[in-house]
Amino acid sequence: MEGSNVVDIEFEGGEKMSRNGSGDERRQPLLSSKSRVNTSSQIAIVGANVCPIESLDYEIIENDLFKQDWRSRKKVQIFQYIFLKWALALLIGLATGLVGFFNNLAVENIAGFKFLLTSKFMLKDNYIMAFFTFAGINLVLATCAGALCAYIAPAAAGSGIPEVKAYLNGIDAHSILAPSTLFVKILGSILGVAAGFVVGKEGPMVHTGACIANLLGQGGSKKYHLTWKWLRFFKNDRDRRDLITCGAAAGVAAAFRAPVGGVLFALEEVASWWRSALLWRTFFTTAVVAVVLRSLIEFCRSGNCGLFGEGGLIMFDINSTIPDYNMVDLLAVTLIGVVGGIFGSLYNYLVDKVLRTYSRVNEKGPNYRVILVIIISLLTSCCAFGIPWFTTCVPCPIGLDADQCSTVDRSGNYKRFHCPPNHYNDLASLILNTNDDAIRSLYSSVNENEFRTSTLLVFFLAMFTLGVITYGIAIPSGLFIPVILAGASYGRLVGTLLTSVSNLDVGLFALLGAASFLGGTMRMTVSLCIILLELTNNLLMLPLMMLVLLISKSVADNFNKGVYDQIVRMKGLPFLEPHAEPYMRQLVAGDVVSGPLISFSGVEKVSNIIHSLRLTSHNGFPVVDEPPFIEAPELCGVVLRSHLITLLKGKIFTKDKRLTGNETLRRFTATDFAKAGLGKGPKLEDLDILPTEMDMYVDLHPITNTSPYTVVETMSLAKAAVAFRELGLRHLCVVPKTPGRPPIVGILTRHDFMSEHILGLYPGIDEHK
Amino acid sequence: MEGSNVVDIEFEGGEKMSRNGSGDERRQPLLSSKSRVNTSSQIAIVGANVCPIESLDYEIIENDLFKQDWRSRKKVQIFQYIFLKWALALLIGLATGLVGFFNNLAVENIAGFKFLLTSKFMLKDNYIMAFFTFAGINLVLATCAGALCAYIAPAAAGSGIPEVKAYLNGIDAHSILAPSTLFVKILGSILGVAAGFVVGKEGPMVHTGACIANLLGQGGSKKYHLTWKWLRFFKNDRDRRDLITCGAAAGVAAAFRAPVGGVLFALEEVASWWRSALLWRTFFTTAVVAVVLRSLIEFCRSGNCGLFGEGGLIMFDINSTIPDYNMVDLLAVTLIGVVGGIFGSLYNYLVDKVLRTYSRVNEKGPNYRVILVIIISLLTSCCAFGIPWFTTCVPCPIGLDADQCSTVDRSGNYKRFHCPPNHYNDLASLILNTNDDAIRSLYSSVNENEFRTSTLLVFFLAMFTLGVITYGIAIPSGLFIPVILAGASYGRLVGTLLTSVSNLDVGLFALLGAASFLGGTMRMTVSLCIILLELTNNLLMLPLMMLVLLISKSVADNFNKGVYDQIVRMKGLPFLEPHAEPYMRQLVAGDVVSGPLISFSGVEKVSNIIHSLRLTSHNGFPVVDEPPFIEAPELCGVVLRSHLITLLKGKIFTKDKRLTGNETLRRFTATDFAKAGLGKGPKLEDLDILPTEMDMYVDLHPITNTSPYTVVETMSLAKAAVAFRELGLRHLCVVPKTPGRPPIVGILTRHDFMSEHILGLYPGIDEHK
Repeated sequence: MEGSNVVDIEFEGGEKMSRNGSGDERRQPLLSSKSRVNTSSQIAIVGANVCPIESLDYEIIENDLFKQDWRSRKKVQIFQYIFLKWALALLIGLATGLVGFFNNLAVENIAGFKFLLTSKFMLKDNYIMAFFTFAGINLVLATCAGALCAYIAPAAAGSGIPEVKAYLNGIDAHSILAPSTLFVKILGSILGVAAGFVVGKEGPMVHTGACIANLLGQGGSKKYHLTWKWLRFFKNDRDRRDLITCGAAAGVAAAFRAPVGGVLFALEEVASWWRSALLWRTFFTTAVVAVVLRSLIEFCRSGNCGLFGEGGLIMFDINSTIPDYNMVDLLAVTLIGVVGGIFGSLYNYLVDKVLRTYSRVNEKGPNYRVILVIIISLLTSCCAFGIPWFTTCVPCPIGLDADQCSTVDRSGNYKRFHCPPNHYNDLASLILNTNDDAIRSLYSSVNENEFRTSTLLVFFLAMFTLGVITYGIAIPSGLFIPVILAGASYGRLVGTLLTSVSNLDVGLFALLGAASFLGGTMRMTVSLCIILLELTNNLLMLPLMMLVLLISKSVADNFNKGVYDQIVRMKGLPFLEPHAEPYMRQLVAGDVVSGPLISFSGVEKVSNIIHSLRLTSHNGFPVVDEPPFIEAPELCGVVLRSHLITLLKGKIFTKDKRLTGNETLRRFTATDFAKAGLGKGPKLEDLDILPTEMDMYVDLHPITNTSPYTVVETMSLAKAAVAFRELGLRHLCVVPKTPGRPPIVGILTRHDFMSEHILGLYPGIDEHK
Repeated sequence: MEGSNVVDIEFEGGEKMSRNGSGDERRQPLLSSKSRVNTSSQIAIVGANVCPIESLDYEIIENDLFKQDWRSRKKVQIFQYIFLKWALALLIGLATGLVGFFNNLAVENIAGFKFLLTSKFMLKDNYIMAFFTFAGINLVLATCAGALCAYIAPAAAGSGIPEVKAYLNGIDAHSILAPSTLFVKILGSILGVAAGFVVGKEGPMVHTGACIANLLGQGGSKKYHLTWKWLRFFKNDRDRRDLITCGAAAGVAAAFRAPVGGVLFALEEVASWWRSALLWRTFFTTAVVAVVLRSLIEFCRSGNCGLFGEGGLIMFDINSTIPDYNMVDLLAVTLIGVVGGIFGSLYNYLVDKVLRTYSRVNEKGPNYRVILVIIISLLTSCCAFGIPWFTTCVPCPIGLDADQCSTVDRSGNYKRFHCPPNHYNDLASLILNTNDDAIRSLYSSVNENEFRTSTLLVFFLAMFTLGVITYGIAIPSGLFIPVILAGASYGRLVGTLLTSVSNLDVGLFALLGAASFLGGTMRMTVSLCIILLELTNNLLMLPLMMLVLLISKSVADNFNKGVYDQIVRMKGLPFLEPHAEPYMRQLVAGDVVSGPLISFSGVEKVSNIIHSLRLTSHNGFPVVDEPPFIEAPELCGVVLRSHLITLLKGKIFTKDKRLTGNETLRRFTATDFAKAGLGKGPKLEDLDILPTEMDMYVDLHPITNTSPYTVVETMSLAKAAVAFRELGLRHLCVVPKTPGRPPIVGILTRHDFMSEHILGLYPGIDEHK
């Protein structure tokens, strides 16, 4: 789908659009009985736009050129390759660490400045001015973030984790890892978080890490004239997949300062294929991130970073001595898990509904998207500034200095707001604060009566609602922080109610509540556990945390899917699940193959190739060896569209059908056919074929992958799906079972395994049998 | 290879032994050009015996019976299956936790009693009697452990991790997970560790966990009349693989009290296939282990467990405040990593040499094995009791009570040995102690001059040597503890030398030294890191630990493989690597297929089947549909040996060639063909076929897997290997490329992908190209 002139066709037929016959009258369509067209899941929503979907080539294309290259590869090149892989892992770690740090630094400084300015007016009892300052700054920041997302890079909106997950599953959606997306993601995330939205910077950090890895892996960006020759070594999707996995892990590591959690997150949630070697490299990348962050925070401790103090990166201090818990505690923890699971799945359900509503607004154009951002920003500001008025003031706890209690500026847990001196407004302390500070307050166990139950209830409801309605607007918005906020306030609420019967303190309850919500929405287990442990730096609460996560995930799994899976499905990304669906056992591979098929001869007429490339958007074409070169037709292999275009550019044509493989191997190297970065492959319209050349022949053998994976047409579809997914294929050839037929029945692609397609073909089938 | 009467044939030809023709003269051998036999890697050393090697069936056998069963499966059965999976995970966790705890309890009590008795004589200055008591008890314990291993279950000797790793790769070696192995492993490990050998109980715990999982998964042991009907639900290798993965993780969790480390260990080192769902279930199992251990230790704290005090399970207390490290520290840590990597690979090299030497002794029979154990036991006792005499006494540090310093019995770090009061022997404190206590002393940072450099050097050399020569004798012996002992003493030695220039304390240096040795021998990264962090309960040292592990692994990888991979290879287990070897790209699948092939007709004569089963030890046979049922021969699928025997037992025979599939489907269910536990399948000699029945026909269609994975004979061998490994196959059908030939060329099995076989066939090939 590289050519823009075929875009309109793509939407009709997509990757496997059908076409009958060819310029060569001699050849008959191979399949005449089946002439289905697969139109499902060829396009998906990326950002707010509808884009065509391609797959990535993870299979090794073993053609003659590759083999020649493989044989001629010297030791020094292999060493260079290994060295560069590690160097890139180092660079990704460094860059992601730096971005993560400066992200925090910028948010803390902008939000700090905002709160300082607001509190100045509050001190003078000028509440209206204070509100307008607060809401105005929020609005400006939000509008900037929204405009960036709406006009420059729509793909940067949202969390980004579903998109990265889809990419690592082999889905190449337009511009999700482009440099513009990276730029908007970083800037938009800073602006959005500083604007006081109930969004996190964790999801965007994962996307940022993946974008950085992609940018480095493809050797910079040609569009912005930023290319580094020495980095352009990884010109294939396999190596890029490894780098982007490292990038995603580095993102989590930078967001949570959790290097082991980052590795496990990448493993459990993001990556579809995993190798032991990758575990090691990912670990190295996150270790680099940890070192970078540590050094920069050391540097900031001496006060060089403005309002960025000790905090910024969330590191919570829980009371480190965990008492022996009794039966009541275990029951309470179980209850938290169950209720957290229910609320978590409810959260997913509501997010899905809201997203579907918003997408109708977003479809109308960028202006509408910005307006939506403005509305939500105003609503958030009103909530943050308005709700604390309805609560009564609380006297400061005895024993606290005036310094520590009843402050107006942002530091300190006890906000005075409109209260008399030596009193504080506990709701304002939570809601009129940065998200990180609110979480830190909820986790603190210094004063267990700091927040009243009514306050916690109101705060919980506010965060739950704002979290649900904020995700989906055109700003980079992570899901971790809203979920942690809602979960921690709910957990602390339960803890406060149970103070009299439980040994555990309220801060710990808040942590367990956050864990239960995270388990209920994201459905991760090991990685969430480790991330939370690394955040709180206390391994002793591991058993309780595991219990809560297991319960909440089990409960929530009864209702719906995890939030990221849900978004992937809603966007229409053709995600391949690791297991085959039950109903696939009732079908065979031949049942879902769409046809008729376009195939080429081993030595093919140029006009035929051009014609086929122009009329279809297929990315793989079977090559069939035919007489006179061979006795009976047999399958030679599969050629890729991009390889065909590159070969045609070389113009090694002959007047008659002749094998010219040796000349091709002399003139080309494997590097000429290497896959360029996203959207930068050779284009059909760049070809300049003379009319006289159209009737000439070209030998396709050197670029034909002679080892394509094949299944027999009677192979169970379930087993074909497993092979397709496990081997990370883009094309799977279906060969006939009975002799005496053409040597290939069709090609299965990712889209042919999608439920919509299969259930569309066989509506009578029982989906669960 | 279930039948004992075919064992002698197995050793000639193994799983794919060739045979020409059959009783039916009508059929010609399909392959006459190739008549190779694959004799490589069909047998391996398990324990000290040479055993035939089979593969496990991880592929779903989609035959008619399976499909009938699948369709008729009710909701309640699916629920029952899911419930039982979780119940088994719970049971595995409980059992492994209990075994792990009682293992520790027994060791602490036996070793404690030994040291108490010895110290009584020491107090009376009766050193000779003390030595004889010490060495005598050691000898008795060691002989018991050795005799158990040598006479009852040779498979229980050694670490067990390589065997479990091989099992999870699909290798079914005889009796490695048998109940007798479990029994000897537990008892032998207790005796061996209590006998003062430089061995750990961690590797054996992994093996124990896997054995427990297997025993529960196959529903008890028929041999010992211990069967639970309601547990007999997982009669296939796929489900057992999941359970055994959980068991291995539970073993690590129980040994180190590291639940997350256990999951990661199973993921990084042991398992070959991994799914997200498995991550979750493994995590649940290890969480159960953690809870069991915690409760039991709580119970013991009140003094109910004899000499088992707070310790037992290694949990080390490192000085928790880690100072900011300077440049010198980082250099020192790098140095530790590099040297640790070198020593680690040296350790592997020496272990390999020693194992090869010992295997010559072990081959001679069980008596020789016990003698070897006795020799090593005496040597260890002499070292432990003899070496401390050569060192001078150290005065107790000022400020310590007489209680704490200069004790004779086992508790306390300062052993008096032969020294005057208020002095202690620092070498005896380390060497004349349990391994766990020695490690705890090395990690302690209370008194950094507790051990002199000369002491640490002597101890390091003693542990390194004893560790190398002890692994391989006929006792269950883990590798973690010897490596940690050597590494920690080396690290503390470096730390003591650098006291003047480094900010880090000696205990931390000891930990980093242990990490570097572990990284150098075992080549794990993430899991080791987490295990060490969970042991020491301090997340702040993560960056340093990561650095050391990465460096030592990188350095050691230049010299040789990890110790477990090395043992797998030495034992001759046909382990499938996750990646294809480079030289495989030069070959195609057809190049390594051995033949000629035995295949059956869709409706086959009984005598032919019996004959083929008797003469070969193949486990999979292709079924070819032939005229008159069909126009031209075509591949129908693959049948398994065990399924054939079960079908023949049913005696649904006909006088003429006729399809009797419906009757078979009526008379049999999928459960009849379910795979029994290890070594308990249906046996050929149990068949009782009358002479009149021999000329009758049987319809193989209902039991034929009609969806076997196939590759074309011209498929690159590298890609075929990737498919074989990724899909977890046992049989991979090779089909012809050109039409007009018989429909199947051969079947590839695990053994055909082994380097020895391929390089044996093509000696001229360049292994590294």
